[in-house]
Amino acid sequence: MKVGIIGASGYGGVELLRFLNEHPQVQSIDLYTSNEDGQSLTSQYPHLLNENKYTLRPLEEAELMDDIHTVFLATPPGVSSKWSGWLRNQGMRVIDLSGDLRLSSPKVYETWYKREAAQKELLEQSVYGLSEWSKEQIKHASIIANPGCFPTAILLALLPVLKANLIQSQSIIIDAKTGTSGAGKSPSSITHFSEMNENFKIYGVTSHKHTPEIEQQLMDVVEEELTVSFQPHLVPMSRGIMATMYATAANGVNSEQLHTCLTSAYKNDPFVRIRDIGDFPATKHVFGSNYCDIGVAYDERTNRVILVSVIDNLVKGASGQAIQNFNIMNGFDEKTGLGMLPIYP
Amino acid sequence: MKVGIIGASGYGGVELLRFLNEHPQVQSIDLYTSNEDGQSLTSQYPHLLNENKYTLRPLEEAELMDDIHTVFLATPPGVSSKWSGWLRNQGMRVIDLSGDLRLSSPKVYETWYKREAAQKELLEQSVYGLSEWSKEQIKHASIIANPGCFPTAILLALLPVLKANLIQSQSIIIDAKTGTSGAGKSPSSITHFSEMNENFKIYGVTSHKHTPEIEQQLMDVVEEELTVSFQPHLVPMSRGIMATMYATAANGVNSEQLHTCLTSAYKNDPFVRIRDIGDFPATKHVFGSNYCDIGVAYDERTNRVILVSVIDNLVKGASGQAIQNFNIMNGFDEKTGLGMLPIYP
Amino acid sequence: MKVGIIGASGYGGVELLRFLNEHPQVQSIDLYTSNEDGQSLTSQYPHLLNENKYTLRPLEEAELMDDIHTVFLATPPGVSSKWSGWLRNQGMRVIDLSGDLRLSSPKVYETWYKREAAQKELLEQSVYGLSEWSKEQIKHASIIANPGCFPTAILLALLPVLKANLIQSQSIIIDAKTGTSGAGKSPSSITHFSEMNENFKIYGVTSHKHTPEIEQQLMDVVEEELTVSFQPHLVPMSRGIMATMYATAANGVNSEQLHTCLTSAYKNDPFVRIRDIGDFPATKHVFGSNYCDIGVAYDERTNRVILVSVIDNLVKGASGQAIQNFNIMNGFDEKTGLGMLPIYP
Amino acid sequence: MKVGIIGASGYGGVELLRFLNEHPQVQSIDLYTSNEDGQSLTSQYPHLLNENKYTLRPLEEAELMDDIHTVFLATPPGVSSKWSGWLRNQGMRVIDLSGDLRLSSPKVYETWYKREAAQKELLEQSVYGLSEWSKEQIKHASIIANPGCFPTAILLALLPVLKANLIQSQSIIIDAKTGTSGAGKSPSSITHFSEMNENFKIYGVTSHKHTPEIEQQLMDVVEEELTVSFQPHLVPMSRGIMATMYATAANGVNSEQLHTCLTSAYKNDPFVRIRDIGDFPATKHVFGSNYCDIGVAYDERTNRVILVSVIDNLVKGASGQAIQNFNIMNGFDEKTGLGMLPIYP
Repeated sequence: MKVGIIGASGYGGVELLRFLNEHPQVQSIDLYTSNEDGQSLTSQYPHLLNENKYTLRPLEEAELMDDIHTVFLATPPGVSSKWSGWLRNQGMRVIDLSGDLRLSSPKVYETWYKREAAQKELLEQSVYGLSEWSKEQIKHASIIANPGCFPTAILLALLPVLKANLIQSQSIIIDAKTGTSGAGKSPSSITHFSEMNENFKIYGVTSHKHTPEIEQQLMDVVEEELTVSFQPHLVPMSRGIMATMYATAANGVNSEQLHTCLTSAYKNDPFVRIRDIGDFPATKHVFGSNYCDIGVAYDERTNRVILVSVIDNLVKGASGQAIQNFNIMNGFDEKTGLGMLPIYP
Repeated sequence: MKVGIIGASGYGGVELLRFLNEHPQVQSIDLYTSNEDGQSLTSQYPHLLNENKYTLRPLEEAELMDDIHTVFLATPPGVSSKWSGWLRNQGMRVIDLSGDLRLSSPKVYETWYKREAAQKELLEQSVYGLSEWSKEQIKHASIIANPGCFPTAILLALLPVLKANLIQSQSIIIDAKTGTSGAGKSPSSITHFSEMNENFKIYGVTSHKHTPEIEQQLMDVVEEELTVSFQPHLVPMSRGIMATMYATAANGVNSEQLHTCLTSAYKNDPFVRIRDIGDFPATKHVFGSNYCDIGVAYDERTNRVILVSVIDNLVKGASGQAIQNFNIMNGFDEKTGLGMLPIYP
Repeated sequence: MKVGIIGASGYGGVELLRFLNEHPQVQSIDLYTSNEDGQSLTSQYPHLLNENKYTLRPLEEAELMDDIHTVFLATPPGVSSKWSGWLRNQGMRVIDLSGDLRLSSPKVYETWYKREAAQKELLEQSVYGLSEWSKEQIKHASIIANPGCFPTAILLALLPVLKANLIQSQSIIIDAKTGTSGAGKSPSSITHFSEMNENFKIYGVTSHKHTPEIEQQLMDVVEEELTVSFQPHLVPMSRGIMATMYATAANGVNSEQLHTCLTSAYKNDPFVRIRDIGDFPATKHVFGSNYCDIGVAYDERTNRVILVSVIDNLVKGASGQAIQNFNIMNGFDEKTGLGMLPIYP
Repeated sequence: MKVGIIGASGYGGVELLRFLNEHPQVQSIDLYTSNEDGQSLTSQYPHLLNENKYTLRPLEEAELMDDIHTVFLATPPGVSSKWSGWLRNQGMRVIDLSGDLRLSSPKVYETWYKREAAQKELLEQSVYGLSEWSKEQIKHASIIANPGCFPTAILLALLPVLKANLIQSQSIIIDAKTGTSGAGKSPSSITHFSEMNENFKIYGVTSHKHTPEIEQQLMDVVEEELTVSFQPHLVPMSRGIMATMYATAANGVNSEQLHTCLTSAYKNDPFVRIRDIGDFPATKHVFGSNYCDIGVAYDERTNRVILVSVIDNLVKGASGQAIQNFNIMNGFDEKTGLGMLPIYP
């Protein structure tokens, strides 16, 4: 099976390559980028030295793609909304890692992203690819909107307990922390080493683009309007997301019930690991892997539920989940090419 | 003026020394430690090489202290509850950086600290030394219970808006993040570099000792019972605390009102800096200094207030505030010995 | 093929598990540890959650090993010198990651390690397993002394140019830098996060145990006595070694000649990558992988050669090379189970 | 006394401000920058919030400076060579932190800096300001060429032993490591957090601009030609330099002799601390301070001397030494405004 990556020179693209390079069903990988500064892939990424079979092609040549089964887009805003329809019409399957196709409402998209939304029709045809929650739809999709990094960590923890009515839907507060690789590879003063090292930062106060994505998917299970407080922070590390979530418990809820709800929800899902009661994950426990680890507690004093979820933002939060979706779409075992244990320490 | 430090070989003690060494009113500093492994101060802290006037004495010799005006205790649990009364009775002023004397209720102390509380009488005589909020009492106190690091960052942000009824008292959720120096200088697997580096951890879920301290001081201004959710995390950095606080807004509250409330509350306080609306602090902005920087936003969508507060946990969160209290007690300018700008980057 | 790991609860052991878990020729992995504090593998290493097939057994049970083809020892000093002979006599192949069997001279061992050496006979039967330099011997060995992390990085760079007489053998100075994982998982004040973060340290001045190992292998190719200056340092990162090597050039040497010498030496070795002239590696370029990347320059002004070599200390510097040797011993492709690309960023 | 800083918006400028703000003899500080993006000092450096007396003025206004006693230039290449003469002619004293005036030979400057040198006359009038080695000249200088960060750490260790003929002058190899703040505040891919974190890099192989500066000052004491190998590296930390220096010992040298040589050389210098034999400094021991800590060993096996020197690159390596020179020029105690202890941890 031949695959292509558009946007291959970003962190998401290179991480796709790391996994696809190991994938037993992938015969070749074509790489495209609009970043045409004439640099080869290895000059930007010396860790890929000797992988001579991989070369960067200019984006325009993507039009010449032939015999490609699936195209992954790891592109900046606006690329996928232009290309995905065309690619699908050429008979290719599309997995889009950008935010272009995640929000079903163009209006909501335009409010939060401050730019024009993709065509309504394209949005309708796209399946939101949170692997554990939409396997059937993913299986039959031609276009996947791969979830954002924060929404992945957050939804995997919240969806089961919200669906089971164990928390009050209007009470959700999400305090999230991410490593810097989520900000991409373009240098900026925010991610300048001397400024980010030995520092902890808050950003996107009340305005992060992942907020409506989280709300959309939560509303999908409760079938009522809701808003959440979602607040991200930057941690002086390269990879990893932790989301700490707070919600008022429904009547009579206890820790065991919450724990059972989560373990049942994911009993057949190899990439979600629920911690024992009283045990909580750290981001390093999933470093480099496609795991999402979740811990839960009920605090009797405050009648609140606390959920803690960690992922590697570039793996389960981006490229790993994209390949998991690729596997599901093609009827492969979900773990194909994704079986490596986390790197520790 | 001669001062003493008991518990001088911990991070808090050494940080006291850094500031007292600069203090124009301090004539000499006697150092005591129970850590009697025969090591000199400079063998544990080579950065103090050449400061030959400072030597560590065994704790027992503290009984021989003479002519000492103020004693700082930067000691593990249980030391201050034994020593503070005696020291005060010898005519010395006591500033206790441990948690022994912060909670006025022995019962609450014993529930959270899982150990015997100090004598009721001693607790009653101790003044909770959040400098900006108790200047008059501090001025006349003989024993100061210096606030915990998290409570300092949290209370400075919450107290004004809670007192002004701008937030609902039962709705407070505090997500806090700290560097590792708060865990002290004893090695452990939690703070082992290979495990803590490139990692973000949660700890003390629903059970951190600073919770009742925060609640006690908040209840003091609202004069009703309340509980808060307080959840700390460990950041891969040495110094710095950020607390992100969420609360439901009272009716009709807006950002300007919140901002004005904070700026008014601290208009005469040199160490609290309120950020402009839309601007938020990072921990590095206060590194090495006694500042507490606070930002605030009102989120109309969720009707919630977000407060962000940062301090250097070893300075305003411990030793710096102790010296600020020492200044207040003695009628010195609050900034004496504390005027250095933050170190950046 | 069934394999065993003795010393499975250390970083080296867990890293062996990461690779062996992926190895297509490995049917089962038995884990042994002398660290009998009753902790399960996952309680020490939550990143291995769900890998229920792996449990830690007490070291004594290693005597009952049956049907095991190869045993990896990732043990503290003194364990391998006791066990390796017995294991081999039971018909097992032994790959020892400790320093017990690396030095052929018991006297040199005792001078540098300050402890009793293994039996002379055992040392004679052990093959020093620098994969690229001893393939034939490794193929027929029953006991492999897996090289130390620093010697691996250093020898791969120095051996070709020394053997080709491009540098003067008595002039070698090696300045090496390592991440903290080489110091193992036991907490200490040296690797306490608050002390190691934002810090760069020197250690083992003129006395590091890897010195005689480097000299022994260099002398092996020049067939004359030599000494080297080898000086290690600790970098505030978890993984990675860089060795910067300086030597006086032989007459008439230039950069092209040095470069050709290195590329020729490793033209058939998939894990050694020689950088183009003017290009030098960073440790992150090999993170998580079995690669050794080498750069070289000739400095006309000083008539010195500079060699720069990087590895991941836990992979090519320990567990990865052990598996590479396991592959060579068994006639598997060297890359079996080791083909993953480095993780970046 | 009124002072000015040209280039006030870089890290060197801000660090000058940190110290001058504390300096009892400094009455006012005027700040100039060519970075005219209309940003205020506090918008670039929120840690300076509330320091309202400091505002950035455009560089051109420096021409209007009046009544300024001393001007510090913390500017990019080429600024000081234009301005220093004019400032001096206006009667001001000049302390230049850039590299423009450090090399007495325009030809050597042009070879290494690849740009036009300052006028010969200006170079001749400039005094190289390594405080401990040129106190008399500094006292009478009107223009100081403040030493580079690496040369400062290196020369303070090498000069005494070279002058005393304890090492062979042609044998010097210097392996240096620096935190990232030396690269300044402009973002780049090299110092992008995701790339620099958990990474150790080499740069400037055989070509770093500080090489001729080191050689010039060493030749000054030996009065013969010499070259050194000087090789810098980047450490994932913000501040700190360690230089590890290797040289062949002169006949009959031992550790005690080396140690005595160093302690004698600096017996009256408060900012140079010589470690006991067998003890070596780490960069964190001088963090935030003007100290230079030096350790030394003689290695009998290789007949080499190893010297280890650490400084804070922004303090003793730049702004701290500039103020030390300012003190010397004005007859103040050298430690004025520089007395703070290092920040630890």
